[in-house]
Amino acid sequence: MRLAIDPFRLRKNMEELAEFGWESTGGIWRESFGAADQAAKQWLIAKIEAARLHARQDAAGNVWGRLGPAGPAVLVGSHIDTVPAGGMFDGALGVVAALECLQTIREQKPALGHPLEMVAFSDEEGAFLSFLGSRAAVGALRREELAEAQNMQGVPLAQALAACGLNVAELLRARSTPHAIRAYLELHIEQGPRLEAAQIPIGIVRTIVGIAAYRITFQGEANHAGTTPLAVRKDALLGAAEFALQVDAWVRSHTLGVVTVGNMDVLPGAFNIVPGEVRLALEFREASSAQLASMEQAILQIGAEVAHQRNLGFRAQKLSWDEPVALSPAIIAVIRQEADALGLKFQLMDSGAGHDAQILAPQTEAGMIFIPSLQGKSHCPQENSRWEHIEQGAQLLLNCLLRLAGSESAKA
Amino acid sequence: MRLAIDPFRLRKNMEELAEFGWESTGGIWRESFGAADQAAKQWLIAKIEAARLHARQDAAGNVWGRLGPAGPAVLVGSHIDTVPAGGMFDGALGVVAALECLQTIREQKPALGHPLEMVAFSDEEGAFLSFLGSRAAVGALRREELAEAQNMQGVPLAQALAACGLNVAELLRARSTPHAIRAYLELHIEQGPRLEAAQIPIGIVRTIVGIAAYRITFQGEANHAGTTPLAVRKDALLGAAEFALQVDAWVRSHTLGVVTVGNMDVLPGAFNIVPGEVRLALEFREASSAQLASMEQAILQIGAEVAHQRNLGFRAQKLSWDEPVALSPAIIAVIRQEADALGLKFQLMDSGAGHDAQILAPQTEAGMIFIPSLQGKSHCPQENSRWEHIEQGAQLLLNCLLRLAGSESAKA
Repeated sequence: MRLAIDPFRLRKNMEELAEFGWESTGGIWRESFGAADQAAKQWLIAKIEAARLHARQDAAGNVWGRLGPAGPAVLVGSHIDTVPAGGMFDGALGVVAALECLQTIREQKPALGHPLEMVAFSDEEGAFLSFLGSRAAVGALRREELAEAQNMQGVPLAQALAACGLNVAELLRARSTPHAIRAYLELHIEQGPRLEAAQIPIGIVRTIVGIAAYRITFQGEANHAGTTPLAVRKDALLGAAEFALQVDAWVRSHTLGVVTVGNMDVLPGAFNIVPGEVRLALEFREASSAQLASMEQAILQIGAEVAHQRNLGFRAQKLSWDEPVALSPAIIAVIRQEADALGLKFQLMDSGAGHDAQILAPQTEAGMIFIPSLQGKSHCPQENSRWEHIEQGAQLLLNCLLRLAGSESAKA
Repeated sequence: MRLAIDPFRLRKNMEELAEFGWESTGGIWRESFGAADQAAKQWLIAKIEAARLHARQDAAGNVWGRLGPAGPAVLVGSHIDTVPAGGMFDGALGVVAALECLQTIREQKPALGHPLEMVAFSDEEGAFLSFLGSRAAVGALRREELAEAQNMQGVPLAQALAACGLNVAELLRARSTPHAIRAYLELHIEQGPRLEAAQIPIGIVRTIVGIAAYRITFQGEANHAGTTPLAVRKDALLGAAEFALQVDAWVRSHTLGVVTVGNMDVLPGAFNIVPGEVRLALEFREASSAQLASMEQAILQIGAEVAHQRNLGFRAQKLSWDEPVALSPAIIAVIRQEADALGLKFQLMDSGAGHDAQILAPQTEAGMIFIPSLQGKSHCPQENSRWEHIEQGAQLLLNCLLRLAGSESAKA
């Protein structure tokens, strides 16, 4: 017997979920622990119960739905919170597809060797703290970062939790029992343009890239823009501009990674004053740990050289450093085999974005399936994917789950 | 008889004036029509009266001090308002030196062919409206710009005037009678490094540069900084960076003018989003009207080309355009002769900054004398000049005034 997902139910659930946090200005905003996110979680719990799965919500606000006896489960999921003015697929696809898979299995009752569980993790997008829910589940949160966490509006996490009947102390105890998770699978949109450009419906993720973030400062001398000749200026903005262009050129020619200057604060920032100081928001990403370190070295060297040539001061403050995370070769092999069996073309690839799977990976066998994003757009109202690809991804997810849960039907 | 200024009194008055608006964080702030500026004006009026000159304040808050009979006067002055965290010399020197000159003449009673008048113009620095006082005096204000004017804190000009017992309607009638001004002289610090570098104590200004201001926008596409490969990005910040470097290089190699990108607003401005839009604050200055126009053409062409090559949108919004202002050749000749007579080395030069003299120039014979600024610093607490140069400048100012007022002593 071959089990098949119900593509109509999957689409209907995606569309129902998209109603929560829909904004008249365009896009969806479900900030974790906010009203729209809470309403969406209640909707999800009702759907899980209607599918006759065992629903529960833990102390981190994560929503779980379980099928089968006690013991280590094969876990499948993602998140349903969004960025401001986000789309309807990022995260939501992985949760709704997980529900569809477990509901299909619940209805068709194949024999399973292991229990199955679905999950929607809280605050993957980091309105308060990135990967809050998945980090709580694996016991990777520290009390201090919870105390400091607040959203863009300055609301402390503790206050947002309280509005949902949760609290920080309980949150630190939300860790799943060790060995409670046998494996973790996550279906997600690519959020980039590569699968669409290659006309390939499935991406199998090898590595989630490492990410480094730096605050870079060029210090010059603020001066009168009319009376200070160009030759004697110490213009921090021109130094910052040269730095941004040179690091872009270096990364293009030396690695497969990406580098982004996402912001520049110019001080004092007036028409008639030569910029005295510029602060850059810089991040760079690479799938190889060695390459990430090379990028850092090159970027810092470029900054120091540009500053030296322009007679500027240079400071580099490391804000964060997350090593690349390799996903499970065993899970990758299962996904490859199941994609082949379904006749789906696939591509092995790295994820340029972070995902809950990287939090689970150190604790269990974790794997990710990507489907194409139209025009590579994500984190915006234009985020979109073809329903055909969504159905193919969800069916592949189901087949992988059946294999991992030791179902007889997976071998049919 | 040769008249000589009193250098001790001049210095004492400079130091007394510097007490108004002195801030504990460093620097001086006398925002026009603010409390410190009003107190400084009261101090100035008292000084004018103590010097037995006729003091008055007009409907624009300008403070005048007159010596001699009715009829067109030789006017001398500057302003006493400052930028935030400014210095004690910009503007203040020209007013205190004018007082010193008239007080010396009042005491020594040389025979004069024409009356003399000193002035401290309101809001030269443009807290509400640049050159407000001098523009009021020559009748160059428009009602609409007065209605719109507000300071950085959003206080409307009308409200600030009211606190000083002034109002917009009266301000529009503050114009001096036509032909009331026979000539205008202004002593000022250079605010740049050229005189100091050349070791020359006196600058004689030929032209006050023209100034153009533009808002330049590069429009790209905001995208995920992790999942969007460098090759497919439309990064508005990289376009803005290339533009800033290219216009700097072009101006260095083609004109004597200056160009400044004083600010960059990056949207959305997050670490993990490729910049979708960057707005630049751009200004450029030149003493030649033809060169100013050439700069504009080159800058707009560079912007369009960079945008085209990087697949970005490009918009250029002209915010202001002030033509260069030539000062009076007759006054320049007088200053040269008097500097020679005093044995003071001088240099003919252009002013890169704007001054009240440029507002008076279309109405009367106007001239400016510069003295060196240490390290070229101005509009900052470190603004400084040597007392020796200040005395030399003030003595030269006195001698020029005597010449222009037709004093017999000037020919002695």
